[in-house]
Amino acid sequence: MRATGVVVEYNPFHNGHLHHLRETRAATGADVVVAVMSGHFLQRGEPALVSKWARTRMALESGVDVVIELPYCFATQHAEIFSKGAISLLDRFGCESFCFGSEDGDIDGFLMTIQFIQTHQEQYDVYIKELIQEGMSYPSALAGAFRKLGNQDSVIDLSKPNNILGFHYLEARNQLGSSLEAYTITRESAGYHDEHFSSPSIASATSIRKSIFSSQGDHEIESYLPAASVQELERYKGEFGGFHRWESYWTLLQYKLLSSSKAELRDIYEIEEGIENRMVEYAKSCLSFEEFMTKLKTKRYTWTRLQRMLLHILTDTHKEEMRSRHDSPRYIRLLGMNTKGREFIHSRKKNLSLPLISKLSSADPHDIQLDIKAAEIYSLGLQDPDARTRLLRQEWSQPPIMMS
Amino acid sequence: MRATGVVVEYNPFHNGHLHHLRETRAATGADVVVAVMSGHFLQRGEPALVSKWARTRMALESGVDVVIELPYCFATQHAEIFSKGAISLLDRFGCESFCFGSEDGDIDGFLMTIQFIQTHQEQYDVYIKELIQEGMSYPSALAGAFRKLGNQDSVIDLSKPNNILGFHYLEARNQLGSSLEAYTITRESAGYHDEHFSSPSIASATSIRKSIFSSQGDHEIESYLPAASVQELERYKGEFGGFHRWESYWTLLQYKLLSSSKAELRDIYEIEEGIENRMVEYAKSCLSFEEFMTKLKTKRYTWTRLQRMLLHILTDTHKEEMRSRHDSPRYIRLLGMNTKGREFIHSRKKNLSLPLISKLSSADPHDIQLDIKAAEIYSLGLQDPDARTRLLRQEWSQPPIMMS
Repeated sequence: MRATGVVVEYNPFHNGHLHHLRETRAATGADVVVAVMSGHFLQRGEPALVSKWARTRMALESGVDVVIELPYCFATQHAEIFSKGAISLLDRFGCESFCFGSEDGDIDGFLMTIQFIQTHQEQYDVYIKELIQEGMSYPSALAGAFRKLGNQDSVIDLSKPNNILGFHYLEARNQLGSSLEAYTITRESAGYHDEHFSSPSIASATSIRKSIFSSQGDHEIESYLPAASVQELERYKGEFGGFHRWESYWTLLQYKLLSSSKAELRDIYEIEEGIENRMVEYAKSCLSFEEFMTKLKTKRYTWTRLQRMLLHILTDTHKEEMRSRHDSPRYIRLLGMNTKGREFIHSRKKNLSLPLISKLSSADPHDIQLDIKAAEIYSLGLQDPDARTRLLRQEWSQPPIMMS
Repeated sequence: MRATGVVVEYNPFHNGHLHHLRETRAATGADVVVAVMSGHFLQRGEPALVSKWARTRMALESGVDVVIELPYCFATQHAEIFSKGAISLLDRFGCESFCFGSEDGDIDGFLMTIQFIQTHQEQYDVYIKELIQEGMSYPSALAGAFRKLGNQDSVIDLSKPNNILGFHYLEARNQLGSSLEAYTITRESAGYHDEHFSSPSIASATSIRKSIFSSQGDHEIESYLPAASVQELERYKGEFGGFHRWESYWTLLQYKLLSSSKAELRDIYEIEEGIENRMVEYAKSCLSFEEFMTKLKTKRYTWTRLQRMLLHILTDTHKEEMRSRHDSPRYIRLLGMNTKGREFIHSRKKNLSLPLISKLSSADPHDIQLDIKAAEIYSLGLQDPDARTRLLRQEWSQPPIMMS
């Protein structure tokens, strides 16, 4: 039984993901697809639209065989640590390969890019440092440094978001000394950050979320989502009263900023250079998260980086807590599986080098504490106290979702 | 110009307070009445119904001449520290006397009680310790120890709440070596904690608040409040959208309990003996503050003591922050005055041994920081983000209220 892995957020699971899934099976010839999926908070420092349980159901209904959770300490990080966590988990879970979507869609281009950078590593690092000192954000500096090394025909375009992620997956694999085989497929149509619909059936998750939260409501999102995803979204709304977005946590963030001392804020992961002063100041005057972010944004900080900082403030996640955890995963949390997925797990179970967590009570409380805290705080974004408590308890009571 | 002081919360200012005010003028013969009033959070560990500014206006409209703020580090404390702060401020502000309402209404009884306890101090302290070890709360132990010393005809009944407070005022005065003259007047009708209306014009603040929050709404509270108070309450509701109560802060408290580590909670003022574990546990399952308190309550802890602990958690007030501040006041914050009050202040101004704060920006930021934090967090209890920001800014922008 051969398994391949995909690194996903499924926020929500849409037709582009479905396409990726089919292409992944075709390209890798794998019997089983394992998705390592971010929990309740995502790489861009945002809450997921719906809980990890609802997103797991979407994934299983659309053909993913196993869903495991990418812990908070990896899921909410820049590409390098994010990739290290995800690839490491797929490796330790017994996958033979992984497959990612990219703009270039050519694995040789990625391998040559890595090769090329390794050859010029020293100069590359100098360029990155220089560009960051000039005020560039880290992702832009990576792409810029790469450009400065001189163009090569056969390398990939590192200014494209999915190429960057893919590049880091491969770098993570090499650093881990993993034997995972890498595949890439071309991403269809919609770009990662596109806010508008351009294809009749494929749209970015960003544009789908935008549509869900727009006043017009369900602006034909059905065309871009598998039926199962549409049902899951409706079910979630019925069960919990709404979806999650930063605005739902604005009062909590405001409270956290106003009740913490500056020293406490400086100890939060990723907070640096006195930005906490501006945060506290704007927390007093802004009426919404949107207004707050717009005031906070400068050329120096990307929107994503600021959101990640604010997320760590919201979850009260300290520097030491993250640094001590993000070197390598300590457990594999199983969120769901189908029959084939279960067979696969049974076949690998006794050889796993990490504990496989099905029940929260069997996990090491210290190891898993950031994920639990994230899930509890995520639930506080719901309006209705009863829904809030039900979602909060789910973190403790929900066994892995089994789909036949 | 002779001034007398009263220690108040005015939550809200009602006919009983008006009566107290008139009797105070009559008993002391003072030209000026100075009220030292708690800010946004009160002795029972609760948010005030309306802001300190609205309550200052009520007080001035009903004849109080000057209102100064009892800082958070005294206002939210048990009777001993509460009294020390209040009496000390009246003394340092240049009052010649103070006058309190009590069930017994006989100042000689108070003085003899203090005398009696001083004579039996050692035995009294032993009894208190014993009773606390038997599981009694501190206030009950004080009254119990006093009873065990043996009845005396001429002493006051220390099981009555206003007698206890008065007793501590006098004790504070003696400890401070202050020359403030003490007066007491008999409290009319309604007991401090009464939840029901019993007199045609006098009702406890508790029963008035209960009526305001009851579904029936304004259950004839007009009979129990001066017209100015009724108008202020209506004005506040119009301006800020509602009143403040613990339930408005429940999500914030829940968030604070779930996002803090146990070590962080143990460092909060008044948290002891592992009670933080039960708090965190119940925060996960309770739908309201009421339900939470009911679960948390045990024989060992009074409702008031628990509310105070939770208030310090809400405001993130640490042990060291309180202990370093509650020995003696460091400033006098002026909330409002009338023309006579202003004359009095001018006559005393140059002899004051504490800084008189009219503008927040002129205060020592370190000294006054707990009051600012309390005011900012208090504003987050409002539903409407715009009202919230307006109230928050008021802490910075509102000069002392001047009433002619």
